Amino acid sequence: MGNTFGHLFRITTWGESHGGGVGVVVDGCPPRLKLSEADIQPDLDRRRPGQSAIVTPRKESDTVQILSGTFEGKTLGTPISLWVKHTDARSEAYNEMATKFRPSHADYTYFAKYGIRAWPGGGRTSARETIGRVAAGAIAKKLLRERFGVEVLAYVTHVQSIVAQVDSARVKFSDIESNIVRCPDQVVAAKMIRLIEKMRRAGDSVGGVIEGVARGVPPGWGEPVFDRLEADLAKAMLSLPATKGFEIGSGFAGTLMTGRQHNDAFRMKAGKVHTLTNRSGGIQGGISNGEPILFRVAFKPVATVMHEQATVTEDLKNTTLKGRGRHDPCVLPRAVPMVEAMTALVLVDHAMRHQAQCG
Amino acid sequence: MGNTFGHLFRITTWGESHGGGVGVVVDGCPPRLKLSEADIQPDLDRRRPGQSAIVTPRKESDTVQILSGTFEGKTLGTPISLWVKHTDARSEAYNEMATKFRPSHADYTYFAKYGIRAWPGGGRTSARETIGRVAAGAIAKKLLRERFGVEVLAYVTHVQSIVAQVDSARVKFSDIESNIVRCPDQVVAAKMIRLIEKMRRAGDSVGGVIEGVARGVPPGWGEPVFDRLEADLAKAMLSLPATKGFEIGSGFAGTLMTGRQHNDAFRMKAGKVHTLTNRSGGIQGGISNGEPILFRVAFKPVATVMHEQATVTEDLKNTTLKGRGRHDPCVLPRAVPMVEAMTALVLVDHAMRHQAQCG
Amino acid sequence: MGNTFGHLFRITTWGESHGGGVGVVVDGCPPRLKLSEADIQPDLDRRRPGQSAIVTPRKESDTVQILSGTFEGKTLGTPISLWVKHTDARSEAYNEMATKFRPSHADYTYFAKYGIRAWPGGGRTSARETIGRVAAGAIAKKLLRERFGVEVLAYVTHVQSIVAQVDSARVKFSDIESNIVRCPDQVVAAKMIRLIEKMRRAGDSVGGVIEGVARGVPPGWGEPVFDRLEADLAKAMLSLPATKGFEIGSGFAGTLMTGRQHNDAFRMKAGKVHTLTNRSGGIQGGISNGEPILFRVAFKPVATVMHEQATVTEDLKNTTLKGRGRHDPCVLPRAVPMVEAMTALVLVDHAMRHQAQCG
Amino acid sequence: MGNTFGHLFRITTWGESHGGGVGVVVDGCPPRLKLSEADIQPDLDRRRPGQSAIVTPRKESDTVQILSGTFEGKTLGTPISLWVKHTDARSEAYNEMATKFRPSHADYTYFAKYGIRAWPGGGRTSARETIGRVAAGAIAKKLLRERFGVEVLAYVTHVQSIVAQVDSARVKFSDIESNIVRCPDQVVAAKMIRLIEKMRRAGDSVGGVIEGVARGVPPGWGEPVFDRLEADLAKAMLSLPATKGFEIGSGFAGTLMTGRQHNDAFRMKAGKVHTLTNRSGGIQGGISNGEPILFRVAFKPVATVMHEQATVTEDLKNTTLKGRGRHDPCVLPRAVPMVEAMTALVLVDHAMRHQAQCG
Repeated sequence: MGNTFGHLFRITTWGESHGGGVGVVVDGCPPRLKLSEADIQPDLDRRRPGQSAIVTPRKESDTVQILSGTFEGKTLGTPISLWVKHTDARSEAYNEMATKFRPSHADYTYFAKYGIRAWPGGGRTSARETIGRVAAGAIAKKLLRERFGVEVLAYVTHVQSIVAQVDSARVKFSDIESNIVRCPDQVVAAKMIRLIEKMRRAGDSVGGVIEGVARGVPPGWGEPVFDRLEADLAKAMLSLPATKGFEIGSGFAGTLMTGRQHNDAFRMKAGKVHTLTNRSGGIQGGISNGEPILFRVAFKPVATVMHEQATVTEDLKNTTLKGRGRHDPCVLPRAVPMVEAMTALVLVDHAMRHQAQCG
Repeated sequence: MGNTFGHLFRITTWGESHGGGVGVVVDGCPPRLKLSEADIQPDLDRRRPGQSAIVTPRKESDTVQILSGTFEGKTLGTPISLWVKHTDARSEAYNEMATKFRPSHADYTYFAKYGIRAWPGGGRTSARETIGRVAAGAIAKKLLRERFGVEVLAYVTHVQSIVAQVDSARVKFSDIESNIVRCPDQVVAAKMIRLIEKMRRAGDSVGGVIEGVARGVPPGWGEPVFDRLEADLAKAMLSLPATKGFEIGSGFAGTLMTGRQHNDAFRMKAGKVHTLTNRSGGIQGGISNGEPILFRVAFKPVATVMHEQATVTEDLKNTTLKGRGRHDPCVLPRAVPMVEAMTALVLVDHAMRHQAQCG
Repeated sequence: MGNTFGHLFRITTWGESHGGGVGVVVDGCPPRLKLSEADIQPDLDRRRPGQSAIVTPRKESDTVQILSGTFEGKTLGTPISLWVKHTDARSEAYNEMATKFRPSHADYTYFAKYGIRAWPGGGRTSARETIGRVAAGAIAKKLLRERFGVEVLAYVTHVQSIVAQVDSARVKFSDIESNIVRCPDQVVAAKMIRLIEKMRRAGDSVGGVIEGVARGVPPGWGEPVFDRLEADLAKAMLSLPATKGFEIGSGFAGTLMTGRQHNDAFRMKAGKVHTLTNRSGGIQGGISNGEPILFRVAFKPVATVMHEQATVTEDLKNTTLKGRGRHDPCVLPRAVPMVEAMTALVLVDHAMRHQAQCG
Repeated sequence: MGNTFGHLFRITTWGESHGGGVGVVVDGCPPRLKLSEADIQPDLDRRRPGQSAIVTPRKESDTVQILSGTFEGKTLGTPISLWVKHTDARSEAYNEMATKFRPSHADYTYFAKYGIRAWPGGGRTSARETIGRVAAGAIAKKLLRERFGVEVLAYVTHVQSIVAQVDSARVKFSDIESNIVRCPDQVVAAKMIRLIEKMRRAGDSVGGVIEGVARGVPPGWGEPVFDRLEADLAKAMLSLPATKGFEIGSGFAGTLMTGRQHNDAFRMKAGKVHTLTNRSGGIQGGISNGEPILFRVAFKPVATVMHEQATVTEDLKNTTLKGRGRHDPCVLPRAVPMVEAMTALVLVDHAMRHQAQCG
C-alpha cells in the first residue's frame, strides 16, 4: 500500500523494473483539458536515462501511451491511465543481486518487509518507478499553467560543494534546460558537469540540492493544520528516491536569525498585499500568501558505486559486493523533472481542495 | 479541511484560542490498552506555556479530560475524545490584532483563504492547536512502548548558532528533562538558556533545531512509494507551527559526501543485519531497517517580537504593529513534546499498516 | 476505526452511552455560514428520546454546544466541534447486561471484535451515537438549503404492514411534523400510532420503512464509478443502526418490469431536460439528473423487547434474558432526522467534490 | 474522481469502451500469494459478453495481463496492474448516440457533469468498466479462500417474477455454474432462461435479484459506526451498474415482523456462539457474528431495448431513439461474478482493517 498520492487530483503508480512496464492512473483530472502524449513525453525525456553524458547510460525510450481518460484529444473527467512499456530487458548480469543486498539500497528493507523481493533491476525500488509520477506531473503542470496561471520550475543549485547563484523570481525554463546538469547558473553548471564526469570516471557518485519554485500561486492554497502546503510539499519531496532533506523559505539557515531579522514585513504593492522579504517561502501558517513558493531538496549521492563494499547475503552472511556495468554518477539532472512533477501534483490538489471548500 | 492525520491510527484535532477549548478525537486505537488522563497530562505539561522562565509566561493549566473511548480504565477500540478546556480568557488588549495582520503569522493567509478570521489569540493558528496532537501523541507513545518496544525521544540540539553534542543512540529521557531548554548536553544547555533569556529581555526571539530519534523500530515499517516512512515524518514535522526544514540521517550535509563515503555498509551483528554507519537515518527505500530512526527539524524564531514592524491592515493600508505584553522568546522547549508526538503518530500508524498487509 | 464519514465535508463522531457525552467534529465546512446552536438543536429534539408517547421514555435533554469553528456567529472554515453532555446517568439496573449478550444487539460482536465491551447502556452501540450524525447533518442541511437550494426531507411510509400514500414531489416538512410518527399521510399516521402503542403495551416492537427525498439537486453530483451518488446514499443509510435495506427509485419492485416499461423517457420542459417518470430515483449512472432523489430504507423492529429470550453469557453458557424497564417500541419517528442527516451529509460532500473537479 | 475502492486492499479502475482497454491497479495485496493470469481469467470469462445465448452477443476475448506486482509467480506486496486490451473496435453504427441521450443510461448525466462525453460504446459508463472490478475481485477471493478460509458465492434468485429456492448455507459453486443463468435451482433456472430468450426476441429486457453469501467469515470483521460491514457491502453493490436496491438478512421483509419474532436467539454450538436464525444476515452492529453473511441485490432491466423511445438531443431538442444491433436481454448472469467480486473486495479490506487494529 502507499502507492496513491493526492486527495482530489489523485495518482496511483505501479510497476517494477521487470514486468510489463510502469504506469500511473490519474483520477480527478478536470474535464475538457486538451491532452495528448505530446504533453507528457517531453518531461519523460528529461527524466530518461541516457539523455546526456553525465547520467546513467542505460537506453530506454520511455514512450508514454494514454490508455484511457481522453476523447478526441480532451480529458473526460474519468481516470487517465498512462503506460510506459519496458524496452530494455534486464540481463542475467545482475545475478549477484539475487543473493546480496546492495548497501544503502532498499534490497534489504523490502525483503525484511515483504519476505520476497524482485531483485532484477531493483523491482519497485528502481528509479523507473518515478516515470509514473513525472507523467502525471506533466498533466498537473499543464492544468496549473492553463487554468490557474501557475508556473512550476526546479533546478540544480548545489552539486556537492559547488553552489550556483540563481534568482528564483526570474529564472526561466530555457535557462535551466540550456545545460545538461539543469543548473541555470551557466558558469557554475560547467564546473558541476566536470565534477560529475570525474565521479563517473572514478566509479563514484555525488549528490546535491535542487531548488523548486512555484510562481503565480494565489493566496489561499493549503489546508491547515495537517495538510499545510509546506507539509504536503515536504512529504512529496521526501517520497522521491534518494532525498534526505527538505526546507522551505529560510529553512535551516533561518534558525540563525532572530525573530526581528527573520519576519517578512507586509507592504501594499499595486493594490495587493506583499512581503518585502520571502523568508516564509510563500507560505504562512500552511497557506500560500501570494509570494513565490520556494524550497530546496537534498539528494544523497547515488548508492550504486563501482567499488567493493561490505554487505550481507539474503541468508545472513557477511560478504562484499561491487557495482558492475552502468552506474549513474549523479541523479540531480534527472531528478529536476521529478521535483517539478511532485510540486505540481501537490499544488493542483490543493487548488482543487481550496475550490471545494472556499470556491 | 486538513485536520485529520493518519490512516489507521487517525487523529482529528479541533479548537481555536477562543471558544470552548481544544481537543482531539483518536480513532483506531487498539482495544484493551490501559489509559487514563495520567498517561496524557505529563506531555501536556511539557508543552504548556508558563512552565519555565524561558517560555511564554501565559498561564493555562491545560488539563485534559477523556470524554469517550475507555471503560474501566482501558481503551475500547472506539474513538477516544480528549478535551482541554480554556481557562485563560482572552482580553481586549488584543484589539489591534483585529484590524492588522501580524508579520510572519498566518493572520493574512487565513483571511485571504476563508474571508473571515478569529483574531483573538490567533484562532486556529494559535499554538494551542498543538495540544490535541500532543495529547494523541501521548497515547501513541504508550502504544509504541508497550506493544512494540519502541522508544521515541526528541531534544534540542541547536539554539541559533549554539550547538549541542548528543549521542542519539544513548540519550535518555531524564537527560532531556534535566534542564528547561530540553537539551541533553548540560553544558551547552546552560548557554542556550542564557541566550534565550537575553532574547526575552530584548523583546526578540530565536529559533533552532530539534532532533528526533526512535529506537527499537523493527525492520519493515513504511509504505513506499508515496508513504515512505521519512516522507510521512517530513509531513508530520512540517505540519508543526514554525517549522522550516526537515532532514533524515545525513540530511543536507550528506550532499557533501560521495557515494562511497555515504553508503552504510551492512554487517551481521548478533544474528541480525545492521549497518556500520547510519547515514540512512534508519530508513532505506522508505522502510525502516532496524537502526535508530534519526532526523532533525528546523524551527524559525517565533514571529511575535516586542518591536514595531511594517505591516498592512485588513482594509489594505500600510501600517505598523508592535507586539505587546507576553511573548515567547523560543518555541523549542515546548516543541520537543510536539516532535515526539508527531513521530509517535507516524510510527504507530505505520506499525498498524504493516500489520495489516504483512502481519 | 471507521468513525469518519465523508471526503470533503467530513465528520468524525465519538461517544458512548457512558462517559462524558457524545459529539462530532465537522471538518471542511465552508466558511462564513451563519451558525449557532439554534440551527442544530431542533433536529436533536426530533431525535431525542422521550419526545412523544410512542418512543422510548428515557429523558435526556440532549443539549448541543458548539466548542469550536465559529466566530461571531459564523463558521471559520476550521473544524466545528459539537458536544452533547450526558445528563441521564446509567444505573446499576443494567447489571444483567454485564454478563449476557442481548439477542440481535451488538454486545456479542463488539466483544468478539475488541475483547472488551462497555455494557452499561450498550457503549458505542447505543443509539446515542447517532446524536453526532444528526447534529452534523443539521449543518449540512443548512448549507444545502442556503448555498445550493436543495431541500432534504424524510418521512415514515410503512409501519409493519401499514402503508402510507405520500407524494414525494410535494410533501412538506410541516406535513411530516404534524404527527408524532412523522408520516405525512395523516389518516394512516393515526393507524400507525395505534399499532406502535399496542406494541409498547405488549412489550414488543415494530419496524418499517422511511422514504427520503432531496429536491433541487442539480444535474451532475455523484462520482462514478465507486462513489456513485446512490452507492454513497446506500452506505450512509446502512450505517444507521437497525437498517436492513435500501432501494433507490423503482428499487426491488423495478425488477418486475421490463426495460421498455422501466425506462425513464427524456423530454424538454421549460428549457431543461426532464424525465417523464422517475424510476431512476433522480440518479443515472451514479450522477444526479435533476429529478428528485428518492429512496427508501428498511428498519427492523427494535431488538429490545420485554420478553424472555434465549441467549448466551460472556463465559459462553446458554441462558435467557428479558428486557426490563424502558423500551422503544418503534425507532422510526426518531430515525427520520437520522435519515435526513445522512442524506444531507452525502449530498453536501458530493456538491463539494463536484465543485472541486468541474466547478 | 471516485474510481478507487477500499482502504487497505485498494483498487483503482480505469478505462472506457474506446481507447487502449480497461484495467485496474490493486494496491495493498499481501505479499507471497501465488498469482498468475490463470487465477483471474475464469472470472472474466464468467463476466464476458457472448458467453451464452442469453447475454449480449458482442465478442470480446477479455484476456487479462498482469503488468506488475508479481515475481516468479508470487505477489510482491507492490501494486498489481491488470490490463485487458480491447479487441472489438467500435464501429460508426453507433453514430446516433453521438447526438442523442439514451433513456435510463448515463449519457445525459455524464454530459451534464463533465461537459463532454465519450459516446462510442458509452465511454466510462460501459459495462466494460466492471472488468477491472472482477479481475481485482478474483485476487480478493483467492486471498479470502487461502488465508482466511472464507468462501464467497453469488447466484440469481429472481428473474422478474420467477423465484428460485436456494439454501444459502449449502449452495455450491458447481450448482451455480451448471446453467447459463447462474441460478442453482435447476428447475426454476430453465424457466428463467426461457423468459430471457423471449425478452431477447422481443427486443426487450428483464431484471431480477442476485443473492450473495459469504461463508466462514469469523466474528469481528466490520468497522462501526460508519464502515459497518453491511454499509460497505451496500455501497459496493450500489456501485455496480443497473443496481436499484440492497438488503441484508431479513431485509425489507423483516419490517413485517415484530421484535420478538425477528430477534436471532443466541445458542452455544460446538463451543461457539451461534444464532438459531439468521435474520441479522451474519452482521450485528456492523460487525460479523460468525454466521453466513447473506444479502440480496436488485438489478433493473437493462436500459437498451430495440424499440423507439422518447428522448432529447445534446442540443436540447425532443426526439426519439431506437436501440439497434446487439442488446443484452438480462444482465444477471454476467452480474453474478461482479457481485462476488465486490463482496470479496469488501471482506478482504475489512479482514485487513481488523488485523491492523485488533490483530
